[in-house]
Amino acid sequence: MRISDVAARLRAMDRVLILTHVRPDGDTIGCAAALCQALRDLGKEAYLLYNPEITSTYLPYAQPYWAPEGWQPEHVVSTDVAVPDLLPANAALYRGRIELAIDHHPSHSYFAAESYVDASAAACGEILSAVIRELTDITPAIALPLYVAISTDTGCFVYSNTTANTHRIAAELMACGIDTAFVNKTLFRTKSKVRLRMEAHMAAHMELYDNDRVVVMQIPLSLREEMHATEADIEELSSLAALVEGTDCAITLRELRVGTVKISVRTGPRVNATEVCARLGGGGHRAAAGATMNGTLDEVKQAVLQAVQEVVGA
Amino acid sequence: MRISDVAARLRAMDRVLILTHVRPDGDTIGCAAALCQALRDLGKEAYLLYNPEITSTYLPYAQPYWAPEGWQPEHVVSTDVAVPDLLPANAALYRGRIELAIDHHPSHSYFAAESYVDASAAACGEILSAVIRELTDITPAIALPLYVAISTDTGCFVYSNTTANTHRIAAELMACGIDTAFVNKTLFRTKSKVRLRMEAHMAAHMELYDNDRVVVMQIPLSLREEMHATEADIEELSSLAALVEGTDCAITLRELRVGTVKISVRTGPRVNATEVCARLGGGGHRAAAGATMNGTLDEVKQAVLQAVQEVVGA
Repeated sequence: MRISDVAARLRAMDRVLILTHVRPDGDTIGCAAALCQALRDLGKEAYLLYNPEITSTYLPYAQPYWAPEGWQPEHVVSTDVAVPDLLPANAALYRGRIELAIDHHPSHSYFAAESYVDASAAACGEILSAVIRELTDITPAIALPLYVAISTDTGCFVYSNTTANTHRIAAELMACGIDTAFVNKTLFRTKSKVRLRMEAHMAAHMELYDNDRVVVMQIPLSLREEMHATEADIEELSSLAALVEGTDCAITLRELRVGTVKISVRTGPRVNATEVCARLGGGGHRAAAGATMNGTLDEVKQAVLQAVQEVVGA
Repeated sequence: MRISDVAARLRAMDRVLILTHVRPDGDTIGCAAALCQALRDLGKEAYLLYNPEITSTYLPYAQPYWAPEGWQPEHVVSTDVAVPDLLPANAALYRGRIELAIDHHPSHSYFAAESYVDASAAACGEILSAVIRELTDITPAIALPLYVAISTDTGCFVYSNTTANTHRIAAELMACGIDTAFVNKTLFRTKSKVRLRMEAHMAAHMELYDNDRVVVMQIPLSLREEMHATEADIEELSSLAALVEGTDCAITLRELRVGTVKISVRTGPRVNATEVCARLGGGGHRAAAGATMNGTLDEVKQAVLQAVQEVVGA
């Protein structure tokens, strides 16, 4: 399937429902909103399926497009969804009838009748930009959610997935006259007070091992309760440890409940994070992996440090 | 002067010395290094004047180009220097004979024989990209320092000065095949342990005023001494307070020495930071201003809060 084929399929559809993934981020929401607006600009009826886990950060981009209760689609499309298990529960009805899946995850499972998957795209928003350009004019109402999609998945052009093409598309979207300053401020330059205080606690109590190359940060259950932290306050907290200068193995331990700890490992070339987490019953990528273990924070910490030693020594 | 005129002047020069500004950042160093390499690619002799305040972050980009002791230039050029007072002390010899100044600061004082100033450029690196494109091919050795220049001054494309043109240039530079992932990691995704601990202390002790719209963070002298913090650890620490969700007036107080406090104020549209700081003997821009006052941290804090009240109430 080529981009022009994707555009052709969409052009032939009407009454389109667009599905997003659980714990929706800017990429899945931004892609769905931009596509929905583009289809409407072509005179079609199009909606997003309500996503019950939407956070206030991305709600403004999705809200104008939620499907009304009881609305029946003729066609179902998904954006940025890698596997059907990542669809929210209320999508169960549509799971078996997805005609077109547009995605950029290497783990995409080709669950739809037709799929366009480009794993070289930093964000699914890059693919949607190309598709929509073939369908209709990119108006500000389309450019803004596409910018949200692309900036979210690249951490605002700072992650290593950012390519020349990412910047080229960002330039085109900005040329539409959208207010990216507001998006950047709310998405990348704002932290809740609770989050700042949790980060402060984690940084103040960080521990260093192995000639200061390994850093451990911890989120005890008590800290979370004490600060009345929400899921949004805790999201992506494991990226903090990865900032510590001179380290190449960042371990974040989050106590999920008494006796259960979620492990997140981010590493440089010296340490294979997947191998570390495989020894602890988890998995992931070479530079970022995770696992969940039973034990106290201290017991789990010892187990992870031991696993790192074994993997590095092996 | 147009870009083509700047290129013509440079093409006519040989034995060129390039000057950078005090407390050199990625923009002044990146521009100077890129221009120096471009002039060398044209077969010319060109060097950067050693900048005694260079930090380890930017040293790798400047080091290959430092002028040897005693080398005599025929022509002197400056990049990203707004006023002669921002030249380092060892540039005194060349201060009166700068032939060409290339800059993007609105406060540029036109101190050189000829000047090219574009205040709409997010970084001086945007101007140099255009100039160098007219002079020679943009090789990776030129593209890398230009990327450093542009990413530094835009906070990696997140600040509100970022334009479509900024992204367009970034796309062209990345297409040269440079390792921007390494630059982004070292410049934007690394913090020293001391810095993280100082930020932790500041966040843990932040104070909120005026219905939580005003946030105050403090850096007592004792904290700095206790943590053996360097100037680099403290640089830009005032940006932390500006992240606090729900606030639109971020005040950072840094005790320079006993009885002297440096004030930094970052604001949203409701509060004019220049007006606040003008009442305290300082100045700056509408959204970011500063002042230095005598008094204890607590006395200065009261004075700043009072000034904010006056400006908002006025």
